Amino acid sequence: MSIKSKIRTIPDYPKEGIMFRDITTLIKDGEGFREVIDLFVERYKDLDIDLVAGIEARGFIIGGAIAGMLGKGFIPIRKTGKLPFESISHEYELEYGTDKLEIHKDAIQKGNRVLLVDDLLATGGTALAGAALVEALGGTVAEMAFIVDLPDVGGRKKLEECGYKYHFLVEFEGD
Amino acid sequence: MSIKSKIRTIPDYPKEGIMFRDITTLIKDGEGFREVIDLFVERYKDLDIDLVAGIEARGFIIGGAIAGMLGKGFIPIRKTGKLPFESISHEYELEYGTDKLEIHKDAIQKGNRVLLVDDLLATGGTALAGAALVEALGGTVAEMAFIVDLPDVGGRKKLEECGYKYHFLVEFEGD
Repeated sequence: MSIKSKIRTIPDYPKEGIMFRDITTLIKDGEGFREVIDLFVERYKDLDIDLVAGIEARGFIIGGAIAGMLGKGFIPIRKTGKLPFESISHEYELEYGTDKLEIHKDAIQKGNRVLLVDDLLATGGTALAGAALVEALGGTVAEMAFIVDLPDVGGRKKLEECGYKYHFLVEFEGD
Repeated sequence: MSIKSKIRTIPDYPKEGIMFRDITTLIKDGEGFREVIDLFVERYKDLDIDLVAGIEARGFIIGGAIAGMLGKGFIPIRKTGKLPFESISHEYELEYGTDKLEIHKDAIQKGNRVLLVDDLLATGGTALAGAALVEALGGTVAEMAFIVDLPDVGGRKKLEECGYKYHFLVEFEGD
């Protein structure tokens, strides 16, 4: 069974009209999860990467597994008020209102090359906020990695406009 | 440098009198993170385990990496309202008030042996709530794994009283 077929679609979640792509059915499958991680590790094992940063919360699962396999350090990028040490934050726009992501000030050294990981690319707002935090600390986003891309929601285009490299394993068009 | 020495202590966080044991300094160190994961994988690779369950959010990082290395499926145990599919919840007591954890109803098959992972064992309330969810779905907690144990806070004693096996890598006494 393919990676794509192991992802569950939940119609009208979190609200009407949204087809939610649920990766929990993929990652609870030992072979499926391992295949995902192996594909990323194959791509990144020979690349010049210092750290893996994962975006809370599903990015922690995927990013943690990639970092562990690559033998790289892992950096959590978290929702507001979750990090215990001195942090910087970056606000970004949602459909209604704004949200914030935070990173520890000492998470990244100047010049570090960071692989930014999340489960899914939709509008790109979260990924761009994560990248802004990495760069605010003097790091460089080597690439952004996602399991799922929803190209019709516009994130891919936005990342391209901003000059970021990205990689995804499957895409759902028409979302 | 030892695993313990890579863990940062933040005094008076999140409130006065608490010595917060911050694992972000350990896991941002590639060698430190890999050593942690290798120790767990060495312990669990020959054990009869079907799934790894991680408790949100730091348990996702550690549990995700262990599951990836073992080639086992990963199950997220999440805070209220975060899971997209049908879920069951378990309420547990905090120092003041209560909190809830949730798991997807189809996360675990009857008879599955589950390794339950979190970064730190303190009072044991969260770990016991996670175990209750695994068991409510017909699973068995094969063992609970933590990086850090704070034995003076009472969690270890509680897990023993409830008959759970647990394993931790380092402990901080006097907390």
